[in-house]
Amino acid sequence: MQSMSLVVVGSVAYDAIETPYGKRERTLGGSCTYIALSAGYFVKTSIVAVIGEDFAVKDRELLASKGVDLEGLEQVPGKTFFWSGVYSADMNDRNTLRTDLNVFAGFQPKLPASYTHEPYLFLGNIQPALQSDVYRQMRRVQFVGGDTMNYWIAQTRDELLETIREWDFLLINDSEARMLVQENNLRRAAEKVLDLGPHTLVIKRGEHGAMLFRRDTLFMVPGYLLEDVFDPTGAGDCFAGGFVGYLAERGFDLKKGHVDLEELHRAVIYGSVMGSFCCEQFGVERFQTLTRKEIDQRFEEFRRFTAF
Amino acid sequence: MQSMSLVVVGSVAYDAIETPYGKRERTLGGSCTYIALSAGYFVKTSIVAVIGEDFAVKDRELLASKGVDLEGLEQVPGKTFFWSGVYSADMNDRNTLRTDLNVFAGFQPKLPASYTHEPYLFLGNIQPALQSDVYRQMRRVQFVGGDTMNYWIAQTRDELLETIREWDFLLINDSEARMLVQENNLRRAAEKVLDLGPHTLVIKRGEHGAMLFRRDTLFMVPGYLLEDVFDPTGAGDCFAGGFVGYLAERGFDLKKGHVDLEELHRAVIYGSVMGSFCCEQFGVERFQTLTRKEIDQRFEEFRRFTAF
Repeated sequence: MQSMSLVVVGSVAYDAIETPYGKRERTLGGSCTYIALSAGYFVKTSIVAVIGEDFAVKDRELLASKGVDLEGLEQVPGKTFFWSGVYSADMNDRNTLRTDLNVFAGFQPKLPASYTHEPYLFLGNIQPALQSDVYRQMRRVQFVGGDTMNYWIAQTRDELLETIREWDFLLINDSEARMLVQENNLRRAAEKVLDLGPHTLVIKRGEHGAMLFRRDTLFMVPGYLLEDVFDPTGAGDCFAGGFVGYLAERGFDLKKGHVDLEELHRAVIYGSVMGSFCCEQFGVERFQTLTRKEIDQRFEEFRRFTAF
Repeated sequence: MQSMSLVVVGSVAYDAIETPYGKRERTLGGSCTYIALSAGYFVKTSIVAVIGEDFAVKDRELLASKGVDLEGLEQVPGKTFFWSGVYSADMNDRNTLRTDLNVFAGFQPKLPASYTHEPYLFLGNIQPALQSDVYRQMRRVQFVGGDTMNYWIAQTRDELLETIREWDFLLINDSEARMLVQENNLRRAAEKVLDLGPHTLVIKRGEHGAMLFRRDTLFMVPGYLLEDVFDPTGAGDCFAGGFVGYLAERGFDLKKGHVDLEELHRAVIYGSVMGSFCCEQFGVERFQTLTRKEIDQRFEEFRRFTAF
């Protein structure tokens, strides 16, 4: 039994990205990719996703090199999901130029039998009904949560509310939190989200950091101040990977009777650390060289620059 | 000798304010007012400012009740500075409807003799040449800094650069820091500001918190998450009052041979605390009831929600 393993569902894609620092015509991307690469520094990660015939051997190798279990990475006839976008000069906005769902349009996540008894599950940003479907295939989950986006909040609201009702944590950005409960004040919005099911809400604020809300705690961390942000694509997913990956590594278990709030706070820091590294190079490039030692050093840097 | 006293120069004004929570037709305002009311919780504060014949006794009494020394508050024929503005729905923007300089147009700050030997000086946001003028009247300053704004950066750039060259610290918001050194990346912008003279730079980011930069430290704090922001007018000045007031209270002295970085970090927290209280009611109303105990409790709250 691999008691510390994390199952991740989401998209695996190719991205064309342009930022003020340059461009890439075709680089590995997708929420599942970023989450798994990030979480892979903390815990064995098993992914559930779909790719087309055009998926490159080197990209499969990158994931495998981080110990990612690819048994649930289904390859089918057709092309891999393709996304293309351009960032604004200050990188706070981006325009989507193209979204070709390709094989992702017919994605019906099927969990390999070896995944179904894992204790940790992160449901990346896909249609809520598919997130529910994956959750139902798991037999012994002890900590489950996920992400969503404005599209699902607007288009599939009831389905989304039904889906997240069973989650332990929801991880979204501030505008999505406000939109989900139609409340502009973030503190009140968070309280309303905690009425929807998840006992833990993590709100990502990009360069402005992140917050964790529970009935019994509030935790805030400022954003890491990067010398250069080359490409913010995937930073939110890397945050998710660091957050849930760290908790899985620590064997976080709600059934232990008491919740270790300090572990949750540290998980937010590890999320922030992983999101910051993601921005330092294009696409997933930073993960080709990143080491656990660098990650732990940046964690300590966060401690230094927030202690008083 | 009152070795712990702080001298503050700036504007004393009447404001008409409208926010989504309501409006006030005429309420005490001005940078000097907010800084002094805030700093007054930490240290004896002596103000240098000008008012007109219409200045109300009750407003003079409010300042006096916080121990503010009013000897340098000059009353002259004419009307007090008047400002009127309306905030946007999310309060992140405001439109100025009216600015009547009135007696402030002829402001020539004259320090009472009793002020000139004080050790702490904060130069609120006025014309840089007047800030320099006040500084030159002081005889034994051991810690000096101030604020400025986009108008002075654009209109009196050389004068401003000459003024801040002698300051220990500069306290401005993020867009002003970027504008001052023409650098969009905040980390690099901060390094460039530290080349201009001040060895300490505090950047205010409103609801997103604040940062302190020095060659030997970086400190960041997230914003306090208020249940309701009634009126952000004066919050930046109250931050300044908390920051410099706390340092004055502690007898902060650069000539001691080493700089106590932890004191500087805590000063940023007290600044954040005072800025947050300011937003809880209209204008200066929160200071009618605020106690030092509440301030210290919120300081501890900051510790709780940022510790990991």
